[in-house]
Amino acid sequence: MREGLILVAHGSRDPEWSRPFERLAAALEKKLPAAAVALAYLEYGPSLEEAAAALLAKGAGSIRVVPVFLGAGGHVKGDLPRLVAAARLSVPVSIDPPIGEQGRVIDAIAGEIAAPR
Amino acid sequence: MREGLILVAHGSRDPEWSRPFERLAAALEKKLPAAAVALAYLEYGPSLEEAAAALLAKGAGSIRVVPVFLGAGGHVKGDLPRLVAAARLSVPVSIDPPIGEQGRVIDAIAGEIAAPR
Repeated sequence: MREGLILVAHGSRDPEWSRPFERLAAALEKKLPAAAVALAYLEYGPSLEEAAAALLAKGAGSIRVVPVFLGAGGHVKGDLPRLVAAARLSVPVSIDPPIGEQGRVIDAIAGEIAAPR
Repeated sequence: MREGLILVAHGSRDPEWSRPFERLAAALEKKLPAAAVALAYLEYGPSLEEAAAALLAKGAGSIRVVPVFLGAGGHVKGDLPRLVAAARLSVPVSIDPPIGEQGRVIDAIAGEIAAPR
């Protein structure tokens, strides 16, 4: 069964705002060709429930939720688990730590900032 | 003259929220030992003006502002340039593109999400 991957971001009414998340989804589709990838937004975009339904329709047998947030506050600690629970999905679901809590992500960002320009 | 580097993030009343940004500042202090690094927040933390004053007191002869935002909406496009202008700094100031608009940052994040766990 395919793994379903939902990248969840905050969302904004500004359409340019979501560009990095769209790039991230495209990069992950290349890196994980066997997975089904979808974007979801807390505001102004497909909801977690809509993204999950799209992945189930594509044959996902499990869903991994990746919070694409640097800082973990109420959205990551409160809203997201609540939305996952409310979706009552029929397949196993896991929630990753937010990307900002992953040391290698922070190191990679530091490396880019420090790189000679 | 030292370069001053201000990492600007959104900020949150939750103190855990700022942990990744503190890690990022610590990583950059190691990677760029000649630079003076400070954190600033739009809300709930040292302001851009306070961070700049701290860096000038440490001998910074220029200031580079790095927006530590993945999505670029009103905060990055509106608030940040306004705050920089309002600070009327006495040294040259530059503003980087937000980290989410830097393709290699997105690739690095994708690499971490795709890495075997």
